[in-house]
Amino acid sequence: MTVPPRRIAAAAPGESWESVLWIGGGLLAGSREHLSSRSGRFVLVSSAGSRAPAGEVRRSLGAAILAEIEIDDREEAKTLSTVSRIADTALGAGVRRDDAVVAVGGGVVCDVAGFAAAILLRGIAWNAVPTTTGAMSDAAIGGKTGVDHSTGKNRIGAFHPPAAVLIDPAAAATLPDRDYRAGLVEAFKAAWIADAELASRIEDSLERLLARDEDALLAAVAGAAAIKAAIVSEDLKEGDRRRLLNFGHTAGHAFEAAGGYRDLRHGEAVAWGIAAALEISLRRAGLSGGEAARIRSALSRLGPFPEPSRDRAVLSSFLAGDKKFTSRGMAGVLLERIGRGKVVESVPLEEWLGAAERASLTV
Amino acid sequence: MTVPPRRIAAAAPGESWESVLWIGGGLLAGSREHLSSRSGRFVLVSSAGSRAPAGEVRRSLGAAILAEIEIDDREEAKTLSTVSRIADTALGAGVRRDDAVVAVGGGVVCDVAGFAAAILLRGIAWNAVPTTTGAMSDAAIGGKTGVDHSTGKNRIGAFHPPAAVLIDPAAAATLPDRDYRAGLVEAFKAAWIADAELASRIEDSLERLLARDEDALLAAVAGAAAIKAAIVSEDLKEGDRRRLLNFGHTAGHAFEAAGGYRDLRHGEAVAWGIAAALEISLRRAGLSGGEAARIRSALSRLGPFPEPSRDRAVLSSFLAGDKKFTSRGMAGVLLERIGRGKVVESVPLEEWLGAAERASLTV
Repeated sequence: MTVPPRRIAAAAPGESWESVLWIGGGLLAGSREHLSSRSGRFVLVSSAGSRAPAGEVRRSLGAAILAEIEIDDREEAKTLSTVSRIADTALGAGVRRDDAVVAVGGGVVCDVAGFAAAILLRGIAWNAVPTTTGAMSDAAIGGKTGVDHSTGKNRIGAFHPPAAVLIDPAAAATLPDRDYRAGLVEAFKAAWIADAELASRIEDSLERLLARDEDALLAAVAGAAAIKAAIVSEDLKEGDRRRLLNFGHTAGHAFEAAGGYRDLRHGEAVAWGIAAALEISLRRAGLSGGEAARIRSALSRLGPFPEPSRDRAVLSSFLAGDKKFTSRGMAGVLLERIGRGKVVESVPLEEWLGAAERASLTV
Repeated sequence: MTVPPRRIAAAAPGESWESVLWIGGGLLAGSREHLSSRSGRFVLVSSAGSRAPAGEVRRSLGAAILAEIEIDDREEAKTLSTVSRIADTALGAGVRRDDAVVAVGGGVVCDVAGFAAAILLRGIAWNAVPTTTGAMSDAAIGGKTGVDHSTGKNRIGAFHPPAAVLIDPAAAATLPDRDYRAGLVEAFKAAWIADAELASRIEDSLERLLARDEDALLAAVAGAAAIKAAIVSEDLKEGDRRRLLNFGHTAGHAFEAAGGYRDLRHGEAVAWGIAAALEISLRRAGLSGGEAARIRSALSRLGPFPEPSRDRAVLSSFLAGDKKFTSRGMAGVLLERIGRGKVVESVPLEEWLGAAERASLTV
């Protein structure tokens, strides 16, 4: 039985960009039908971890592939020099303005390849084929592309929404279990800030998700992707609405940085960051103890996640260095109730540090 | 006597960018008043050739300067690694999203610093203080930023219009005569494609321009900047309207590349490129012989410019590699009459080569 793919358009009225999300089982084999390139030609960017799905995309695109490059998908490789390698490959092959990039991989591959597309010939189109649960739920959608810098993550980049995003749960089939579970945190995060009904549904399907049931995964990432698409359609560039998606990311980024981007997966750091944000939400946003416990319970079932570093001096330096720490103060996202996030501008650094110290995933 | 500066706003209706051009004598000393930064803080980028005007900007900004870097302003330095150095300096100093870059220099400095601003923290504001006649007339306005690649010029970049452009003719006071004259070609180009009245006026003032009369220079660059601002307001991203500004740049880029970006200044290559485009315009766009002679005469008075390489094989490879050579064919700009340019899509490569061989600046 073939279920037709779900199509979700993300676009802001009056803006010049549009992303089309295609979500469904079996999409990879027919990727040529949904990937977008004005010339019909593509530059394929993948990684060692995404060889199986990249192979399916390659078979579908065939001679439409102008050039191909495999990049390292670890956070350490998310650098300008990897972008430069992609640019060398594409320009060396004679890429033109009407050609497009296809990124097949997780968040790192999508971020780096999308950024390369953003600056090649002052911007060519790109497509995302996410192969991790995190990239399907979050990273591949919304147009934030870029690389890290020694002073912090994602310090160099561009807003460049992909023309098309192909989400096929089968692309995550070979994903190691730890990455699979960590990435799901982003899907739950999306539901918790914006959609109580989806939150209940995916919490109920948690055992099937952990058993890697593709239908359950499809439902979870489709729900999360739809939320993200709706939010970025309203607000591509980090106004209040988009900042809701940063739920769990204020303390989360600090935990991730404190672990040198090695000790914790991004999703694991976000899980701990959500736990920290729950502490503050109980006090400042009227979140009930019962709902906080429900979220902790879901996160603990997705885990167990490795304990983060709680070194106060280290966390403090990373919190103070956050991109969102502008002259207006330290912005963060709290939860009023499940399905309703809230942006706050001015939670003192001290309070974030205290919450990070107390953050718990034990119910 | 103080003449108030002229203010020209460039902005596209419904788009999210706006550039404000300030044009006048004596602007440098009061640059703080016109440079734009939401936080009030600036990262200053300059070059050895722009030390005098950069000094004036520095005195005006004072403690508002967060970080400062001097870069090489030769074409060879227009690379991702120079952008990376600017990013290191800015991020190392703790640059935030509401800070802004100020580029004080010629086209290379504006292109590189503007591109660094485009990708720092996914885009911060920038300001241009052009110090060459070419950058005042053309390069600093319109939002094309970027760097070169071994496969060609400006292959990596972004559209990122400056928030403010400060054009003070005194900033060109220490510019070597060869650069001063070459840069004026861009001012004449703007007039020839779009404003017959301005063309007559600046042709008439040519001797005063060559004598480096600041009022004459102010009038010429103000006219050219106004044309460019009007065109990019209609069309930021290289639709037909903006492509008019490429008059002289099709063969010009090939001449410049054939000279290894050393033998000819950009403006000199454009002068030869205009001569080539005149050849084709006579045949295909109805340009009169008299007007072609008038343009050649002005260019020869701006020169003499060094002879370009006319090696057919070399020019052919650069023409075929042009960014504007899409699957639609080779686009170019012709002149119907002085004050009226015209974009054509499909002049055969052979015809460009023939015109490049015959291009003459002798009246």
